[in-house]
Amino acid sequence: MNDLSSLLSPRSIAILGASSDFRKVNGRPLKYLLEKGYTGSIYPVNPKYSKLGALDCYPSVAALPEPVDLAIVAVPARFVAAALDDLGRNGAKAAIVFSSGFAETGPAGRALEQQVVAAARVAGLRLCGPNCLGLINAFERVIATFGQFADGDTAPGPVGFVTQSGAFGTAIAALARQRALGLGYFVNTGNEGDVTFVQVMREVLADSRIRVGAGYIEGLREGAGLIELADAALASGKPLVLAKVGRSEAGARAAASHTGALAGADAVFDGVIRQHGIVRARNEEHMLDMVEAFACCALPQGNGLAIITQSGGAGVLMADRAEELELSVPMLGETTRQALQQVIPEFGACDNPVDITGQFVAEPGLLRESVRIVLSDPQVHIGIVWLQLMDAYVDSLVMIFEELKSQVSKPFIVCWVAAPEKALRELRARGIAVLRGAEPAVDAAAALMRYAEARRNWCVDQDARIRLGEGAGGGELVFPATRGPVSTALAARLLQASGVTLAKSEHARNADAAVACAERLGYPVALKIESPDIVHKTEAKGVRLDLRDAAAVKAAFADITANAKRCQPDAAIDGVIVQAMIHGDVELVVGLKHDPVFGMVIMVGLGGIYVEVLKDVVFRKAPVTEAQAGRMLEDLKSRAILDGVRGSPAVDRVALTRLISAVSLFGVAAGERLQELDLNPVLAGGAGATAVDWLMVCN
Amino acid sequence: MNDLSSLLSPRSIAILGASSDFRKVNGRPLKYLLEKGYTGSIYPVNPKYSKLGALDCYPSVAALPEPVDLAIVAVPARFVAAALDDLGRNGAKAAIVFSSGFAETGPAGRALEQQVVAAARVAGLRLCGPNCLGLINAFERVIATFGQFADGDTAPGPVGFVTQSGAFGTAIAALARQRALGLGYFVNTGNEGDVTFVQVMREVLADSRIRVGAGYIEGLREGAGLIELADAALASGKPLVLAKVGRSEAGARAAASHTGALAGADAVFDGVIRQHGIVRARNEEHMLDMVEAFACCALPQGNGLAIITQSGGAGVLMADRAEELELSVPMLGETTRQALQQVIPEFGACDNPVDITGQFVAEPGLLRESVRIVLSDPQVHIGIVWLQLMDAYVDSLVMIFEELKSQVSKPFIVCWVAAPEKALRELRARGIAVLRGAEPAVDAAAALMRYAEARRNWCVDQDARIRLGEGAGGGELVFPATRGPVSTALAARLLQASGVTLAKSEHARNADAAVACAERLGYPVALKIESPDIVHKTEAKGVRLDLRDAAAVKAAFADITANAKRCQPDAAIDGVIVQAMIHGDVELVVGLKHDPVFGMVIMVGLGGIYVEVLKDVVFRKAPVTEAQAGRMLEDLKSRAILDGVRGSPAVDRVALTRLISAVSLFGVAAGERLQELDLNPVLAGGAGATAVDWLMVCN
Repeated sequence: MNDLSSLLSPRSIAILGASSDFRKVNGRPLKYLLEKGYTGSIYPVNPKYSKLGALDCYPSVAALPEPVDLAIVAVPARFVAAALDDLGRNGAKAAIVFSSGFAETGPAGRALEQQVVAAARVAGLRLCGPNCLGLINAFERVIATFGQFADGDTAPGPVGFVTQSGAFGTAIAALARQRALGLGYFVNTGNEGDVTFVQVMREVLADSRIRVGAGYIEGLREGAGLIELADAALASGKPLVLAKVGRSEAGARAAASHTGALAGADAVFDGVIRQHGIVRARNEEHMLDMVEAFACCALPQGNGLAIITQSGGAGVLMADRAEELELSVPMLGETTRQALQQVIPEFGACDNPVDITGQFVAEPGLLRESVRIVLSDPQVHIGIVWLQLMDAYVDSLVMIFEELKSQVSKPFIVCWVAAPEKALRELRARGIAVLRGAEPAVDAAAALMRYAEARRNWCVDQDARIRLGEGAGGGELVFPATRGPVSTALAARLLQASGVTLAKSEHARNADAAVACAERLGYPVALKIESPDIVHKTEAKGVRLDLRDAAAVKAAFADITANAKRCQPDAAIDGVIVQAMIHGDVELVVGLKHDPVFGMVIMVGLGGIYVEVLKDVVFRKAPVTEAQAGRMLEDLKSRAILDGVRGSPAVDRVALTRLISAVSLFGVAAGERLQELDLNPVLAGGAGATAVDWLMVCN
Repeated sequence: MNDLSSLLSPRSIAILGASSDFRKVNGRPLKYLLEKGYTGSIYPVNPKYSKLGALDCYPSVAALPEPVDLAIVAVPARFVAAALDDLGRNGAKAAIVFSSGFAETGPAGRALEQQVVAAARVAGLRLCGPNCLGLINAFERVIATFGQFADGDTAPGPVGFVTQSGAFGTAIAALARQRALGLGYFVNTGNEGDVTFVQVMREVLADSRIRVGAGYIEGLREGAGLIELADAALASGKPLVLAKVGRSEAGARAAASHTGALAGADAVFDGVIRQHGIVRARNEEHMLDMVEAFACCALPQGNGLAIITQSGGAGVLMADRAEELELSVPMLGETTRQALQQVIPEFGACDNPVDITGQFVAEPGLLRESVRIVLSDPQVHIGIVWLQLMDAYVDSLVMIFEELKSQVSKPFIVCWVAAPEKALRELRARGIAVLRGAEPAVDAAAALMRYAEARRNWCVDQDARIRLGEGAGGGELVFPATRGPVSTALAARLLQASGVTLAKSEHARNADAAVACAERLGYPVALKIESPDIVHKTEAKGVRLDLRDAAAVKAAFADITANAKRCQPDAAIDGVIVQAMIHGDVELVVGLKHDPVFGMVIMVGLGGIYVEVLKDVVFRKAPVTEAQAGRMLEDLKSRAILDGVRGSPAVDRVALTRLISAVSLFGVAAGERLQELDLNPVLAGGAGATAVDWLMVCN
């Protein structure tokens, strides 16, 4: 059932309800298949005709001369299930259902869709749709769509594009065509009654003719499938670029009402795909800028960006953008600068950004030599060459870039503002990425560098990930039999058994026991109320810090138990936790939760108002290696705090990443029994990282 | 000397060194003037010819038959000064110097430029350049440039474009032309030896045919001039859109080395232009998107954005962007939704974003009616209508938008992805803004709303600004005779006299006096070391907080004076400041400094690590009204903290903005004598805002 080859590369196609009116939804696929030269068998099915053009037309599915690989179904929604029954009897392998009127229309449509999906299952058919535009396999000229994209040229290329949205997907495909970015596949999965985005993309990327995957998604249910897809893409070195709408809360709400699918928290999606080397696009043009760069450029071997312009201002604008993206725009080496000084006029600039001045119009060799010199600098791994207009010089410039491409091994992107159409066409025909704005060019270069880095990390981490997988879930964790908050002491035992560093603490049921604990732990200590019913201890005035002697401990015990009773009279109070005082320079939050799409995910954030006001948190799918935990810290917007501010030392990243990795392993071992875990705060300092408070809730 | 009319609208033009070779720098202006139908007198000057085409050619400037309004000078750098001398004798009024080889090349060129500028002054000439591409006044067909932009169509339009950069400016102009955005003026000011960006833009905006100003700048010295320009633009209701490169530190460094001009801190520039209603563009396309919207759309009367699509996904993407920009995408009223339900198919969406579905292809009236209904909602002030492709329906869609434009008073922007060229052309010919990407459309709508709001605020604030101006600088401030840090007590008197609320404090030279002060102020108190040599009191262990009795005050006095002596043995110590303890929920920083471009500016930020790590600060030119101070707070990224977090109340914004405004007035009154002022922290709570520590340094 998993084979999608009949869907994507059918040797025969039946068109149910085929029409001779080529403007109609059920006429268009026939027109496209004929016009674009599909070489398999085409079987129109329609009792109204005996012939459609030169083709025999069949009165019914039952009359078809052989089992078909693929059937196109464009009959009204209420007839679809019956059509699938017929196809089952024919022995057909896959069907594309264009028809709308299903889940997208509400509860009645959803019920109808369930019937259709069940019918497909019974019939042994893979089902694309319903409510989809269909698909194009441009290599085999399978134009099984009624979408207006197929009206134009559909020459194949190295990009596989899969979209959940028909309308927006069509727009993106048309923009790709405007750039001469050939789409080997265009697939719209629609309501995904059976075949999903992830399944199709995986099959598309497995095609050796596809070098880059591009996807547009609105909601996704199969987190594990996406991760497998991402790992397969990394293994094969094929970048996967995804645009997913619903980044914001407002957008997520609109997406949920639009698709009916649970989008999952966008921050989780973002973190997990980053972990797995998927490149995220903000919008349609950003996606295609990156796809063009990936399709044309070798991956940079490092993170040094060189900018070469004939306008100082454009160079500055690109340097601005590079700094925003935290890219390195390195100083050029002395040798490089001396070589540039030989070719660049006095009023140019031999630093990075390099300004070769307008003089290159008179001396085209100046451009070629400058780019070659700059790219030969060992600090430089990718170049952007900025141009504008130059209508009169297209031929010579194209020739220069062609020469450069054949002579240099490092990648470069041409940024040509207000480019003549011919220049775009000719450069793209030569496999040279040419973007049309200064910031988009920097964004695309950043995507190349980041993807290359992610892939290097992925390769380096491989062994650690395998070891982690072997370690995960090993120990037996004994959770309490009942649901709800786990006692502090038991939670501590569970976490410590998993190697998570916690502040030393003991449980005391009366004041004297608390003093005894304090004396064992050593002063000063903290006292915290212990109660399964009091989740927010501070708000219940159930915490006292920095107690320095027995008298203070006794007084604190009386205080906080009284406070807790006053605050929550019904709370079952089980004495206090006595804890050694821990000092740290930075407060962090580390947590685990179940994401509806990805399962157990780990969250790391900077504590206090950073997490509350700035929402500066990073997610990953658990488990994470220590190296991956380190990259989570690098993704925090306020990470500068970890390097030490106001004279405090840099935090102990080794201890901190070890703690994060251990927590993630605990999460995997705990599995379904764990509802959530919140270590808040984790205090990190120059040496060590320790969780001071922990709230564990079990299912 | 300030009149630029001879430069921008000359009745006669001499071309020094005019060439019959129309490909050359000194041949091209003649070609353009002739081809494009300049109706004034043209005087080629070149001893080599007696005629150039049909025109008489003059052997020298001395031989010209009349004083010319404008002369184009394209002779080698070393001959320019002499040419200007000649022009002075002719009585010429303005000159454009194309020639390069001046300040942009280094010290020798800078000296040469100074000679040329001096020669222009002696000759009574306004000078544009040197090292510039010249200018176009498209209305009067003054094509006084050799730039390649003039090779194409230069039909006039409502946009005045002034650029410091020739190369990048040409690219932007060409992109504007691609959008059919007519440039009434294109002026490249080059090295700005005399005529500056600000002067030209002011003159251009004074032309009644210009409705929008667009500028590209790399560095600016005349802050006061820019503010006057901005205020004039606001008064006339002509939006002014500026792209300034050098946003980042790396970019600013590159800009400084490129232009040789001091860029000033970008954050200051950003804050001050925002204060004065200038719209900032990130890059070339962002600039033109906004210029197109301003040229085509009425200003929205409020901040409600409606999104109308036939793709749910595009709607979500735009909602995402709107949330990022903190725009309101309001729920539609019940009446509106009911009306939409009458026209939109069942599987569409009648909420905002509205999804009218692909059905409108069959029923074009659906689009027209939906847009009309949505725009009639009182919560909606501007609409974005999203489309894609639709090659076959361009005529009917254009007609619908034309009808809508004539029938509705609220502005709308068409976002047409992968639009057919004809659609773009036809819509633009009808004055309808049509952008090509979903996010750019939202960005442009945001610019319209924000500019409209800034202008409304500017109008409302007018009286308050005038009163503020009258109050400013009134009181006589007596600064110490010497430069350096001002004593805490004197600084307090100066600030309090200006109405700035400070924590009560007294100066004490010995421990007994400190106790007496504490008793007057009431316990608890803080003690802080007082020394002109110790700027960082905390680092010198010179601060003790929360002292609750006389013994504690005495001990603290001994402690901190000893600490200070140990820490800085040479520091002159002048006892301590005894201060009442102040509690606040939020720490802010308020400061004053001299900006090299804008003079006295006020800074507001959230204190502690917010200002240090996140650089979350906002600048304005001093003085600011209380309303303007409130908008500074709104511009803080972490402003949510002001609304109360973790159960703390919202801060007292009235007290806080009063304090900020008072500080700004102090800054203006202090003028040159004040080097800098740093109130850090200012503590704000549910009632009141009080500066707790202040460092004042005088010049």
